[in-house]
Amino acid sequence: MHSIEQYREDFLSYMETKIATKEPKNLYEPITYILGLGGKRLRPVLTLMSAEIFGADYKKAYDAALAIEVFHNFSLVHDDIMDEAPLRRGKETVHKKWDVNTGILSGDAMLIYSYQLFEGYPPQTFKELMHLFSQTAMQVCEGQQYDVDFEERDDVSIPEYLRMIAYKTAVLVAAAMKMGAIIAQTTEDVQDLIYDFGKNLGIAFQLQDDYLDAFGDPKTFGKQVGGDIIENKKTFLYLKALEMGSPEQKRELEHLFSIKPQDAADKIATVKELFVDTNAVSRTLQEIEDYTERAFKTLEVLNVSEDKKQLLRAFGASLMQRKV
Amino acid sequence: MHSIEQYREDFLSYMETKIATKEPKNLYEPITYILGLGGKRLRPVLTLMSAEIFGADYKKAYDAALAIEVFHNFSLVHDDIMDEAPLRRGKETVHKKWDVNTGILSGDAMLIYSYQLFEGYPPQTFKELMHLFSQTAMQVCEGQQYDVDFEERDDVSIPEYLRMIAYKTAVLVAAAMKMGAIIAQTTEDVQDLIYDFGKNLGIAFQLQDDYLDAFGDPKTFGKQVGGDIIENKKTFLYLKALEMGSPEQKRELEHLFSIKPQDAADKIATVKELFVDTNAVSRTLQEIEDYTERAFKTLEVLNVSEDKKQLLRAFGASLMQRKV
Repeated sequence: MHSIEQYREDFLSYMETKIATKEPKNLYEPITYILGLGGKRLRPVLTLMSAEIFGADYKKAYDAALAIEVFHNFSLVHDDIMDEAPLRRGKETVHKKWDVNTGILSGDAMLIYSYQLFEGYPPQTFKELMHLFSQTAMQVCEGQQYDVDFEERDDVSIPEYLRMIAYKTAVLVAAAMKMGAIIAQTTEDVQDLIYDFGKNLGIAFQLQDDYLDAFGDPKTFGKQVGGDIIENKKTFLYLKALEMGSPEQKRELEHLFSIKPQDAADKIATVKELFVDTNAVSRTLQEIEDYTERAFKTLEVLNVSEDKKQLLRAFGASLMQRKV
Repeated sequence: MHSIEQYREDFLSYMETKIATKEPKNLYEPITYILGLGGKRLRPVLTLMSAEIFGADYKKAYDAALAIEVFHNFSLVHDDIMDEAPLRRGKETVHKKWDVNTGILSGDAMLIYSYQLFEGYPPQTFKELMHLFSQTAMQVCEGQQYDVDFEERDDVSIPEYLRMIAYKTAVLVAAAMKMGAIIAQTTEDVQDLIYDFGKNLGIAFQLQDDYLDAFGDPKTFGKQVGGDIIENKKTFLYLKALEMGSPEQKRELEHLFSIKPQDAADKIATVKELFVDTNAVSRTLQEIEDYTERAFKTLEVLNVSEDKKQLLRAFGASLMQRKV
């Protein structure tokens, strides 16, 4: 088995050989740009790791890994337009550096390119990969739509929220791992297990992101701490606090999430107190633990050697034990 | 063999069984809406016709035909955003009826859905269809980008223009026909011939559209006659006039294509005179004739019965002999 760092390096080298700025430049330059902005390359690394865990040469998984990464970046380009985000990884977003039309069209081309990347696989594998890929891509769109819809709604349930983050984030992580298993031609049972591992871990990760957005250490958390509170974003913490709080706490929270004061410090402090006092924090931490545990449980029944399970566990742990 | 009207009716019935507004509604309603706006359904009809011509049950081609139609409508939704078009087939465009974000995301979902529609085909056919579909989809994006780029350029060559309209319009018509041949499992030679037929006819059709935009009968031409001239659009007529005209005619034309007078009647009249006087009109009509002829020539070598060739010829003729 190789190390995560090795997968990442090899993936980046491979990506460099495949991504070239062709004509028309205005279509392809933004693609080279966004793919070159960096990032952890978590998803493609998972595809390579999964392929090798299930006994395939991980180089066979390069194209699927790249497809996942290109798709992920397509979704970032279009999401950034919708969110009017000026920055992505500290650099200008595509629609800011070029314009909205370029962002739309280059994004479309990335989505199509991600499909093309599977063409090197033999027909049966190709078909299985494409089925999973399209299903996942559609769920990502649905997740994004739910996220948009939730902004306008004040009756979002916890199950609805969990489905939204599953679709928007976790299914792509799950699919990345399942693709490795498909390429290694495992049984469907094994494919489903590794998918569930990735999905539950993805949900745990996203819930942790919600938690850290309010309670993370500003020094180590990548984004602005309190950002979700400033934006009145209905995160798991917020929904849980509404569910658990007294009528008065609920009223106060709903009021605070209807205003955007110039100086947000007081609002952030009060909301965080409410999150703690309603036990939303402890329940959220419990939920993160539950999903992580559920992910690890699927590993137990997986028919691979103990050292490979250990690798997956170590990966899961390193993902979840970010400094808080 | 069935009639074009029969194909269209059957296709519409099939589409109705497949297109449902699922949850989240804000993602799927715009898809139902745009697909319900009507249109000639030219591309899906061609897929069904082509499948039957090459000996397959045309019902086998329903999903490929629907994929082509969904993709075509995806490209309309995103193009309408880029062009800021308020109307499509006399009704509000998706981004006007909803908003730009809805147009982007529903368009993305349509592109993914069009890929999913191929999943019912057996692995080898699936792979061949997907390869053609992705290649075509990418060319449509490239064609759109060239079209955008050409607005800013004053040195567009005729071959560049022909490539742009081929990519933006003709390759999808060509792919629609080739898909029928793939589903009927013809030889590659036959697939290439029907592709060329569709592509050349598509280019001829688009050139005729350029011509009719300036010289069509306002009563029968669907769009505003003179619209391209008002918009200073560099059509084949314009590029040919620049190529053929005297330095003075060239200067006059370039000047007229740099202004947008309140009352465009004089400008339209003068430009049309220049198109005639430079022989751009006769050269354009010749080019339309050449591409149509080229399309018909590929039929001659096609190994299908004479009555089937006659059907394709009749279709081509009806497409090209619109009232002018």
